[in-house]
Amino acid sequence: MSDFRQKALDYHQYPTPGKISVELTKPADSAKDLALAYSPGVAEPVRAIAEDPDNAYKYTAKGNMVAVISNGTAILGLGNLGPLASKPVMEGKALLFKRFAGLDSIDIEVSHRTTQDFINTVANIADTFGGINLEDIKAPECFEIEQALIEKCNVPVFHDDQHGTAIVTAAGMLNALEIQGKSLKDARIVCMGAGAAAIACMELLIKCGAQREHIYMLDSKGVIHTRREDLNEYKALFANNTDKRTLEEVIEGADLFLGVSGPDLLAPEALKLMAEKPIVFACSNPDPEIKPELAQATRDDIILGTGRSDYPNQVNNVLCFPFMFRGALDVRATAINDEMKIAAVEAIRQLAKEEVPDAVKKAAGIDELTFGPDYIIPKPMDPRLCQRVARAVAEAAVASGVAKIPLPDNYMKD
Amino acid sequence: MSDFRQKALDYHQYPTPGKISVELTKPADSAKDLALAYSPGVAEPVRAIAEDPDNAYKYTAKGNMVAVISNGTAILGLGNLGPLASKPVMEGKALLFKRFAGLDSIDIEVSHRTTQDFINTVANIADTFGGINLEDIKAPECFEIEQALIEKCNVPVFHDDQHGTAIVTAAGMLNALEIQGKSLKDARIVCMGAGAAAIACMELLIKCGAQREHIYMLDSKGVIHTRREDLNEYKALFANNTDKRTLEEVIEGADLFLGVSGPDLLAPEALKLMAEKPIVFACSNPDPEIKPELAQATRDDIILGTGRSDYPNQVNNVLCFPFMFRGALDVRATAINDEMKIAAVEAIRQLAKEEVPDAVKKAAGIDELTFGPDYIIPKPMDPRLCQRVARAVAEAAVASGVAKIPLPDNYMKD
Repeated sequence: MSDFRQKALDYHQYPTPGKISVELTKPADSAKDLALAYSPGVAEPVRAIAEDPDNAYKYTAKGNMVAVISNGTAILGLGNLGPLASKPVMEGKALLFKRFAGLDSIDIEVSHRTTQDFINTVANIADTFGGINLEDIKAPECFEIEQALIEKCNVPVFHDDQHGTAIVTAAGMLNALEIQGKSLKDARIVCMGAGAAAIACMELLIKCGAQREHIYMLDSKGVIHTRREDLNEYKALFANNTDKRTLEEVIEGADLFLGVSGPDLLAPEALKLMAEKPIVFACSNPDPEIKPELAQATRDDIILGTGRSDYPNQVNNVLCFPFMFRGALDVRATAINDEMKIAAVEAIRQLAKEEVPDAVKKAAGIDELTFGPDYIIPKPMDPRLCQRVARAVAEAAVASGVAKIPLPDNYMKD
Repeated sequence: MSDFRQKALDYHQYPTPGKISVELTKPADSAKDLALAYSPGVAEPVRAIAEDPDNAYKYTAKGNMVAVISNGTAILGLGNLGPLASKPVMEGKALLFKRFAGLDSIDIEVSHRTTQDFINTVANIADTFGGINLEDIKAPECFEIEQALIEKCNVPVFHDDQHGTAIVTAAGMLNALEIQGKSLKDARIVCMGAGAAAIACMELLIKCGAQREHIYMLDSKGVIHTRREDLNEYKALFANNTDKRTLEEVIEGADLFLGVSGPDLLAPEALKLMAEKPIVFACSNPDPEIKPELAQATRDDIILGTGRSDYPNQVNNVLCFPFMFRGALDVRATAINDEMKIAAVEAIRQLAKEEVPDAVKKAAGIDELTFGPDYIIPKPMDPRLCQRVARAVAEAAVASGVAKIPLPDNYMKD
């Protein structure tokens, strides 16, 4: 076993198994404490919540608690390994929620027979939490699941693999377009991959101004076009009325390439066919659609993003999801709507244009970080992210009418 | 609002709402840490668990995590106020699990349409946890729910309102019988109340040696007898073939009275009818079936227990449930069986016979605690409870074949 693999296992095993624990936030040392925490004192908040459910935000941990829920059907790039095997990833997500946004977060792995059974299970436990982050659920079921849960639940539901990826991708692409002197409205787009992330990325780009007819999406069978009869309803939305059938045909003259597919699927020959000043996000992990060195050697006018932390412009969901929930929960948003997603895109975009504090450069191990081809997306360790993104999201929730309480005074102000 | 009520609300609200938080047990400060905690390092424990589900105990928090699950249909003595209103109680239970047994514990409140829907929901999420503590679920549904979940789940399932109460009650009653010079086998028993706790207490007493035909159980309609046609299947097990119809008739000559019913339902006149050296557990909370002062004034040969911390012999579930799960989880028991329950009864019994450390007396605010009529049950703050009860439970799990791993070396030894 490689040194890194062993280190990863050791990290998870020692000194105690796993990555999270539950701790007390209140004193529980004396009989007096316990009389307040449990019987008889606990009857008071019980009564208060029975009178007004919103009192749960006042007297319980609900308002700061996010459930990370999976059925393990699409774990990382490893596939359908079942709910229990997804547990380290879900605990990892809980760790990121706490680390980056101070949110309490607990993982729930769900076994189920049918999609409806999964939906029902999550809906039944949803009121326990302030919000629900769905994770590693395979397409196309994830679309139906998220939609149904949004309708059934009183708390925000967010499938991070779709929307977290889409928000960070959109932020990076909009900045890249700006640097390349192009507009999203005119951009010709190739999306390699037609899973949850691909579809969510394209839908969000359209909401940000891209034109659906400028998008060519490819799945394992090639270009998704109007004459294909094997398309599920989600892919069908991207069926292009075209005679083009191959990557080579659609990539000619394209401005934007998004890869959420697999390693080495973008050949240098195809890259050469793109328009001048192309933008390539090769997000397959750990091995991107084209090796960054090869991409740079093929086109020196490129702006390149990947999913990897060891190259510039990492498309990393952690720039988004902790703060989406931070902002949503802080104004008790009942949903995470498009306005909030677009606000997050803008906040992430703008932060990349600001001067980077030395501490962030140091944490990233990079001497120079200035808005430009090698820095279009903020770094995960940038402490300003929480403030900027959560504030933007909370403000958008209030403005769009899904917030149940107003923005707290001086919320996340400098 | 009374001072205590306001204090209880303040305790729950400040400085942060609720009583529990989720914290990190592993470093998450650098990009290097995050590469181990999340992508790409997290793929290693994922693969290991996919190969062998037991690796979840090695690489995730599962093995130390107990879910406290309710539907809010029988919250304390307050009735069916719904799942969300039960949240402070469930968080309180989580607090007690952590405080007394070091177990991580998270509350889950379940909305549902049918009993089957509740069962299905809990079974679907059960693998997330090392064990499931059911709480505040009304009878008779709680019996069906617990039985079904025991069958469906790979982890121990325990309805504390039933078995926690039964274990502590049995321990106290056996010690009281010993002091009064009586045997459980010959004891004539009156059980006032026929809910979940009452039925579980009587079943456990029978397993400890009591005779079913010596038990008279009463519900709101009086004595449960064989000619009644309004009995559910659980009460029917206690239908006594008798002509007696009232408390006064059945309490005559009784040795043991258990009240899990309501305030002031045991009149002094009825108490006078009991056999000499009677044992009365008046557990209705906060107002017992007979006021302790009145009971003592009526019979000076009585041994009295209540549910209250401000009188001697408090029957308190916290003496049991944290340690049942501590012991069960430490040997990965697949169930909590009768052997484990009886082992807990014995461990609690025996601890009451030992000399009490000064620190425990001080915490209890009592100068003298010696085994006898006023001290038949240990005090909740006794730090030896975890050691004794968890060890007894774990040993019983191993001996009865439900443990998946052996007792750890020197487990909970002095």
